[in-house]
Amino acid sequence: MRAADLVQPYPTVTLSTPAIEAARTLADADLPGLIVLDDKGKPFAVLPGTQVLRMAVPSYCQDDPPLARMVDEAAADVFIRELGERTVRELLPPQPHELPVVRPQATALEIAALMARTRSPLVAVVDGELLGAVTLHALLDRVLPA
Amino acid sequence: MRAADLVQPYPTVTLSTPAIEAARTLADADLPGLIVLDDKGKPFAVLPGTQVLRMAVPSYCQDDPPLARMVDEAAADVFIRELGERTVRELLPPQPHELPVVRPQATALEIAALMARTRSPLVAVVDGELLGAVTLHALLDRVLPA
Repeated sequence: MRAADLVQPYPTVTLSTPAIEAARTLADADLPGLIVLDDKGKPFAVLPGTQVLRMAVPSYCQDDPPLARMVDEAAADVFIRELGERTVRELLPPQPHELPVVRPQATALEIAALMARTRSPLVAVVDGELLGAVTLHALLDRVLPA
Repeated sequence: MRAADLVQPYPTVTLSTPAIEAARTLADADLPGLIVLDDKGKPFAVLPGTQVLRMAVPSYCQDDPPLARMVDEAAADVFIRELGERTVRELLPPQPHELPVVRPQATALEIAALMARTRSPLVAVVDGELLGAVTLHALLDRVLPA
């Protein structure tokens, strides 16, 4: 089996999408992550769910646990409102050297190795244009012995 | 809201669980990751789904894309069988410096920052013993404005 056999349509956002809308897309459809398209409709980034969430964590808290602890409970409940109107482009976390993107010919093993290496529970499948994605659970369902 | 308000019961595996059974637990319940308990019932590791999958990727393929490409399609479909009887203990991937584990008092913001920092879509909640976990989607559902 190849990526072409495993690929499924997958929701996308763009660099201009408000980050809060991206978070809502992830939450509403229970997605493992998001594909971010550039202005030409090609994958610019593939964000695991944790990195979508990262956009909503105020930067002063991201890598400093004591600072996050100093925010009181009421403010901590509504941290996501600080996103305001900011877009994915403005908040995109640092990108890995290797994007989790494959061609339709990639095998199940190549996809699994790529997911493990990039820590991404989804890979985009691209052949000139975006064909969709393979998720970790879709892959596991196909490779686990019955 | 605190971790105590967000925590839910969560399936666990142990260091002695066969890795293939751990992968099946993840797949069958569509989990974002697994909590691995030590022999005393305390969380030894919290594995995002990608790192559960990593246990099943033969080590010679993990960090070497050209080698993964050289495996033919038929063999690539059944790579997971190479797990055999090996246990989680034998295959546990390298652990991060910071475990995604919180006490019941942790705020929503602390949990979000921890998920983003450790790239873990679940955090274990521990108060002496394991109380359960908070998943990324459970957290997003509570913090996104209606």
